[in-house]
Amino acid sequence: MSTDLMPNRYRPGEATLSPREEALIARRDNVLGASYRLQYRRPVHFIRGEGMWLYDPDGRPYLDFYNNVPSLGHCHPEVNAAMADQAGRISANTRYLEPRLVDYAERLVATFPSEINRVVFTCTGSESNDLALRIARFASGNEGVIVSGHAYHGTSAAVAAVSPNLGDAVMLSPNVRMIALPGPAGVPQAEAAAFFEAQVRAAIVDLKRRGIGVAALLIDTIFSSDGVWVDPPGFIAGGVDAVREAGGLLIADEVQPGFGRTGSHMWGFERHGVVPDLVTLGKPMGNGFPIGAVVGRHAPMDRFGNTARYSNTFAGNTIGIATADAVLTILQRDKIAQNALAMGLRLRAGLEDVARQQSGIQAIRNAGLFFGVQMGRDGMDPAGRRAMALDVVNALRDDGVLVSTTGANEDALKVRPPLICQAEHVDAFVTAVKRALTTVGARAAGGWVTRTRQP
Amino acid sequence: MSTDLMPNRYRPGEATLSPREEALIARRDNVLGASYRLQYRRPVHFIRGEGMWLYDPDGRPYLDFYNNVPSLGHCHPEVNAAMADQAGRISANTRYLEPRLVDYAERLVATFPSEINRVVFTCTGSESNDLALRIARFASGNEGVIVSGHAYHGTSAAVAAVSPNLGDAVMLSPNVRMIALPGPAGVPQAEAAAFFEAQVRAAIVDLKRRGIGVAALLIDTIFSSDGVWVDPPGFIAGGVDAVREAGGLLIADEVQPGFGRTGSHMWGFERHGVVPDLVTLGKPMGNGFPIGAVVGRHAPMDRFGNTARYSNTFAGNTIGIATADAVLTILQRDKIAQNALAMGLRLRAGLEDVARQQSGIQAIRNAGLFFGVQMGRDGMDPAGRRAMALDVVNALRDDGVLVSTTGANEDALKVRPPLICQAEHVDAFVTAVKRALTTVGARAAGGWVTRTRQP
Repeated sequence: MSTDLMPNRYRPGEATLSPREEALIARRDNVLGASYRLQYRRPVHFIRGEGMWLYDPDGRPYLDFYNNVPSLGHCHPEVNAAMADQAGRISANTRYLEPRLVDYAERLVATFPSEINRVVFTCTGSESNDLALRIARFASGNEGVIVSGHAYHGTSAAVAAVSPNLGDAVMLSPNVRMIALPGPAGVPQAEAAAFFEAQVRAAIVDLKRRGIGVAALLIDTIFSSDGVWVDPPGFIAGGVDAVREAGGLLIADEVQPGFGRTGSHMWGFERHGVVPDLVTLGKPMGNGFPIGAVVGRHAPMDRFGNTARYSNTFAGNTIGIATADAVLTILQRDKIAQNALAMGLRLRAGLEDVARQQSGIQAIRNAGLFFGVQMGRDGMDPAGRRAMALDVVNALRDDGVLVSTTGANEDALKVRPPLICQAEHVDAFVTAVKRALTTVGARAAGGWVTRTRQP
Repeated sequence: MSTDLMPNRYRPGEATLSPREEALIARRDNVLGASYRLQYRRPVHFIRGEGMWLYDPDGRPYLDFYNNVPSLGHCHPEVNAAMADQAGRISANTRYLEPRLVDYAERLVATFPSEINRVVFTCTGSESNDLALRIARFASGNEGVIVSGHAYHGTSAAVAAVSPNLGDAVMLSPNVRMIALPGPAGVPQAEAAAFFEAQVRAAIVDLKRRGIGVAALLIDTIFSSDGVWVDPPGFIAGGVDAVREAGGLLIADEVQPGFGRTGSHMWGFERHGVVPDLVTLGKPMGNGFPIGAVVGRHAPMDRFGNTARYSNTFAGNTIGIATADAVLTILQRDKIAQNALAMGLRLRAGLEDVARQQSGIQAIRNAGLFFGVQMGRDGMDPAGRRAMALDVVNALRDDGVLVSTTGANEDALKVRPPLICQAEHVDAFVTAVKRALTTVGARAAGGWVTRTRQP
């Protein structure tokens, strides 16, 4: 596959920048090197954030419909106050007795089904998935891992090796198997569950024929890097049963769908009516403070904890705990998930209206405030759809609205606003999408022109 | 090896605790599980920290000679102000243009020899070592890793697999080889360099005979988990040459010795007169805020960055950068490394005095403010030395002073005070060690009694 893995990025010469920006980018490239890619054809620079808005050095506001780390909005004053207050008192590590650590751990596990009652803290979603894989392999005695075809689970060596989304240059583990998802394969919803289960069973057989047992089915419960595939609820259940029959565990990667983003539930797996063995958390847990966790059933967690030595210097330190505790308090007190559900319905209705009025939107997939909006028009080939999605994203950026792309072909808009967004923001976003489709459609009248240069 | 891997910990029934503490520990065990071990026979609980001191709920002060994360002291007001100020403005990710990110990256690489001029940010020391291994394997095309016999480099799956210090229950990679260090092997200093080089060459041969090429020599430049082995400066150089001849890289793990702790230099590798290919950073970088980095030469860093896709959501976010920038400013402005050098000399002289006056200290090893203080008396077996070290650590804890143990036999005191410590703190610590040796010596008169229960 030669698809550009990050189409929505800055390429020198593709946009006119100010001399100050050019100079900063040159210094940046020199010291940070090639790993650091800038988003958008014309990179953005913000000096202030507040709620749904980011402001550039000229004071121009950008409506943020992309960043899912600050779920409660940028620079939330209560969250920041909790962080600063704790930083001024003490930041103890987890080898000291600390009631706040225990209090928060109890509050966190209380948001899960009762079978899930243990937590180990980490600092990032990658650390969470890496640790969950270690626990699953330890508990099952097996090495095999099953993931979706374009899964992304993080950056550590072990997790990158089960993340096909990273592309051909990043070696996959010989113990990983990728499965097709029913949605992208075009399977009708009524057959989705059977299709998914058959895929999982085939992967188990393939692993076994090579002498590899199954440690885990590892899935992002909203399949975000595959393009956001959410329906029908429950379609993963048969596959989960198959993995358990084979001695493996279900690891639900809730780094993106968790903490209320799906609206109907606190955790994405709940939409599917399954109870995982291990659940991994990250991004919005501290509204920006680096904190994550593995939450799970006691049997695998205890088996690992009693045998292997594990400790993580920064994880569970009191500043991170105080910050995450404030986030959870606000999520529950302000009924943030309920808001995500209501705003998700409003956004869906608004985008459906646009789709009826204008060409360009081929499908809208969402749960709560996580959307994959499929770009394209009849007869367009994959390269055309990808180019169109990229043009729409950049037209929105030029119009002061932030989103990006997702999916195997990077041809869907990835829309994940902070969960505090209100009707006015949703309506402004819908209007901006309408405007972007008009701009981009006019520009491409008479056939889509691929404006992306190859990498 | 059946040595208890964390001898300095709480075991139920070994100390009398208050009902409130007992209840909190029961809740803690229930929700956090067995991975979470408490330090000291009688666990500690602090509600306030300031500079060198931690305070328990009764207001009792503890002198902190152990925590190497808050290198500038607990709850440093300037560091906290920088964190809170940035949190109130914006926390941008690294895909947006952000001058602070570039400024700090330039300031950080400027503290290294000129060959080392690229940086990629992470959130923890484990992430740094995991990424450095990925880069070294990518750049060398090889898989083999050479580490010291009791090395500890972190908690991710890939890093745990090259950390023999984690003990028998954590599987090692088939591609890792452990080497003996000259100090613990009793090799005279004049022969240390030749011994180390011979060990590295033998490991290379052993790897090659199994078809495994050498990716890296990965070393903590102060060998802290091996028991703190620092002399003679330069003893690693021949081994580094051997690894490079074989196509491998030198990864200097500076998570513990870095940022001025060795006193004479900003980075531990500088004491040894070598320039690594990759350097990993963590613990004190943000004085408690979760931030780390891989810093390195452009060739391997660019080879990885140009080919593999790597990004880390939280790493390099503006709050972490602002915090780390404040830490570096204070380190340089307040000449913290020079203080570490002076206080290290004072502490060494004080402990040498104690060793002359009382039995119990068999050797003192240090660079700056990182000490391994070997416990034991003539004729004592390893179990006796370990028990003695544990008793001294716990006598100090009861006396209001925090340290712990290190080394293959866990029989050396691990002493790593915040780098801001002053003469009064050093002198108080020396007096406390003298007192602890007296207490413990009297208790053990007539032969050392092992008071540690087996795990």
